[in-house]
Amino acid sequence: MGYLFKDVKMVSMNDDLPEIYQGDLLVEGKYISKISQNIPKSAHKVIEGKNLLIMPGFINTHTHVSMSLMRSYGDDMELFDWLHNRIWPVEARLSKEDVYWGAILGIAEMLLSGTTTFLDMYQDMEMVAKAVLDTGIRGDLSRGTIFTGNQDKDDSALENLIDLIENFHNKAEDRLRILAGPHAVYTNNKDFLLKQVSIAKKYNTGINIHVSETTKENEDCLKEHGMTPVEYLNSIGLFEAPYTIAAHMVHLSDNDIKLVKANDIGIAHNPKSNLKLGSGIANINTYIREDLKVAIGTDGAASNNALDMLSELQYASLLQKGINSDPMAIKAYEALKLGTFDGSVVLKRENQIGMLKEGYEADIIMFDLNQPHFYPLENSPVANLVYSSKSTDIIMTMVQGKILMQNRKLLTIDLEKVYCKIKDIINRIYSDEVN
Amino acid sequence: MGYLFKDVKMVSMNDDLPEIYQGDLLVEGKYISKISQNIPKSAHKVIEGKNLLIMPGFINTHTHVSMSLMRSYGDDMELFDWLHNRIWPVEARLSKEDVYWGAILGIAEMLLSGTTTFLDMYQDMEMVAKAVLDTGIRGDLSRGTIFTGNQDKDDSALENLIDLIENFHNKAEDRLRILAGPHAVYTNNKDFLLKQVSIAKKYNTGINIHVSETTKENEDCLKEHGMTPVEYLNSIGLFEAPYTIAAHMVHLSDNDIKLVKANDIGIAHNPKSNLKLGSGIANINTYIREDLKVAIGTDGAASNNALDMLSELQYASLLQKGINSDPMAIKAYEALKLGTFDGSVVLKRENQIGMLKEGYEADIIMFDLNQPHFYPLENSPVANLVYSSKSTDIIMTMVQGKILMQNRKLLTIDLEKVYCKIKDIINRIYSDEVN
Repeated sequence: MGYLFKDVKMVSMNDDLPEIYQGDLLVEGKYISKISQNIPKSAHKVIEGKNLLIMPGFINTHTHVSMSLMRSYGDDMELFDWLHNRIWPVEARLSKEDVYWGAILGIAEMLLSGTTTFLDMYQDMEMVAKAVLDTGIRGDLSRGTIFTGNQDKDDSALENLIDLIENFHNKAEDRLRILAGPHAVYTNNKDFLLKQVSIAKKYNTGINIHVSETTKENEDCLKEHGMTPVEYLNSIGLFEAPYTIAAHMVHLSDNDIKLVKANDIGIAHNPKSNLKLGSGIANINTYIREDLKVAIGTDGAASNNALDMLSELQYASLLQKGINSDPMAIKAYEALKLGTFDGSVVLKRENQIGMLKEGYEADIIMFDLNQPHFYPLENSPVANLVYSSKSTDIIMTMVQGKILMQNRKLLTIDLEKVYCKIKDIINRIYSDEVN
Repeated sequence: MGYLFKDVKMVSMNDDLPEIYQGDLLVEGKYISKISQNIPKSAHKVIEGKNLLIMPGFINTHTHVSMSLMRSYGDDMELFDWLHNRIWPVEARLSKEDVYWGAILGIAEMLLSGTTTFLDMYQDMEMVAKAVLDTGIRGDLSRGTIFTGNQDKDDSALENLIDLIENFHNKAEDRLRILAGPHAVYTNNKDFLLKQVSIAKKYNTGINIHVSETTKENEDCLKEHGMTPVEYLNSIGLFEAPYTIAAHMVHLSDNDIKLVKANDIGIAHNPKSNLKLGSGIANINTYIREDLKVAIGTDGAASNNALDMLSELQYASLLQKGINSDPMAIKAYEALKLGTFDGSVVLKRENQIGMLKEGYEADIIMFDLNQPHFYPLENSPVANLVYSSKSTDIIMTMVQGKILMQNRKLLTIDLEKVYCKIKDIINRIYSDEVN
């Protein structure tokens, strides 16, 4: 017995089907087993309804999910002031359990807004792994590292990375993966970066790193190494890791673009966070024309302040039209692809998720089009999804064949309990506020 | 008997109160009669609840509400192609009744997303006036004009403007106003513009006009008149109208800025439409520093494609931070003010609406903060409203003391009927599609 989506609209991201396909989709076990017309209802649970639309779940390729605890704690501030006087003092007070509940809060928000897979970077990742296992979402978790110069601490960070990989990598039927997560060039040194590359190589996993987020980062790197961050990472051999995902990439030179292409680096574009922190606007329209692999991330809720991929996709599309004076830049379908299949490519999951296709795992979301902002329904639903829909129009989120959210209710998370926990945590961690 | 909002959070936009005020607000008749602590419940209808937040309704200072009929009909296209091959052929087929139902659809979307007042420009405005009267929203309606050179047609457009003013201006207890709406410099000539100015003067009303939306508009105007659009309008005396609201204003020179300031022109900034059509990004951060009067509009659903002011305010804030490399540009509170009180200033309704203040009319919206994306609630609700909330968090919309939307249900619009009407209209107006 499976779930049968009956006579629904599909935006499958699957080139074998038309952009919008009206028909049936059957989920059996964790897989999409059939897409066609007139699949018999048999003993399946049938989900049908006029004006339902299904598509692959969103893939958020950059976030720090536990930072949901710091949502709207210090906005409209200079980056340095914000980090030193707001974020870092609070992070120093976080317990492992806090990281878990922060992750649960963020995952709740993601499941309610149609995200089925996320790539995370933070500390205490065993707690985030537990949150992934407990909630049913798909998570690629990178162990964030900052070189401290304290050998015990630095060694222990690497040991922790290895422990995480051995305990969690490819677990829960590959719903969970572990990556190395050197925070950035400016917070790591060459030796420490290369140790992480060799761990990634040994365990055949990837590297997740912030690159060229700000002009200051580029200027400092040029001053210290005589190279841009991309050139520096290339020169030391970081890109020899099995794969690399570079977040932000706001400021790339022509040579950077060549190196990114030659090394098959995935780019996680975070348009709202980059705007909000005043970092700038990555010209992903150019990157895509140069055949770079671009996907979309929200960044953490401390700098966004939402984990809403649909909103992020709208920014990704509209910004490129605006800054390139080109209404045809990043068309609606292309934006949806950036948020789904292109994410799976960057995460090396392109044979598993990111489209509605027989044999792919069933990570599916469903929209209720019966909203004023979708009318007239006869016009383009694809354009509506990107330019006028809201993530609250999503009424079902499924991961690996399991429904995790239905009719706006979370099935694996008790929100009232989460709210209570968050309240307790906040009372403690903000008790010695710096400001 | 009135409505008593009991022990709620208020973002009042009223400088006499703190940014967030926890207390009671009483609505009696169409007015806010009292804001204080511990107003007795007496015989009032009491609205109370943990985690409710009220604020003034949004003021959308630029739209073409009936164009909701063309939502997602031609996206990701060049402007010229879009107008000639999509929009204008369809507009030529619109009946008066179509304009009414398009307006109702747009008003439904606006009431559901917390807009209580809008400034419109379109044809057949008596039908939009009827939609305003029927639904209870507040509307300032401008009669769009394009000079055709056919004297009968042009005279009749001006007569229609006068009829509209005489029938509807300041009606429904001033819930409805009529303005002149010359479409733009490039679609009108001097004589026709000045005739509209003299009508505006005679009836003491305003002018609503598109100005400097694209670089092409500026270049053409410089070629034809040797002046920018703002300079041209100033030179012919258009700004001698009682007041002027100029939509878009994307490309202003230093001299334009001086003229706008000297003539007290209101600016309706439409960030999403300007991005989507590839027109550019107005630097409203500069305009505001120069003390220009800026407010926010969505533009029509054919070029946005939503009429969602909350999303528009987020763009207005984030874009300015991004293009000015300044995370402190257009802070959250400032963004909310752009969408509320600053709108009332531009519409010359600043003594009537746009803040929660005793004696002001009760145009109020209420948010339910009990959503994951509002947590932790202890941090800044103002930042949450702009950076992480969704318009679907709004659970009540009140205009002139009457509740028009409650718990996401519209009380003056039958949505099912609207959907049927829209379907009928679409089948007819798109039947001879050009593409």
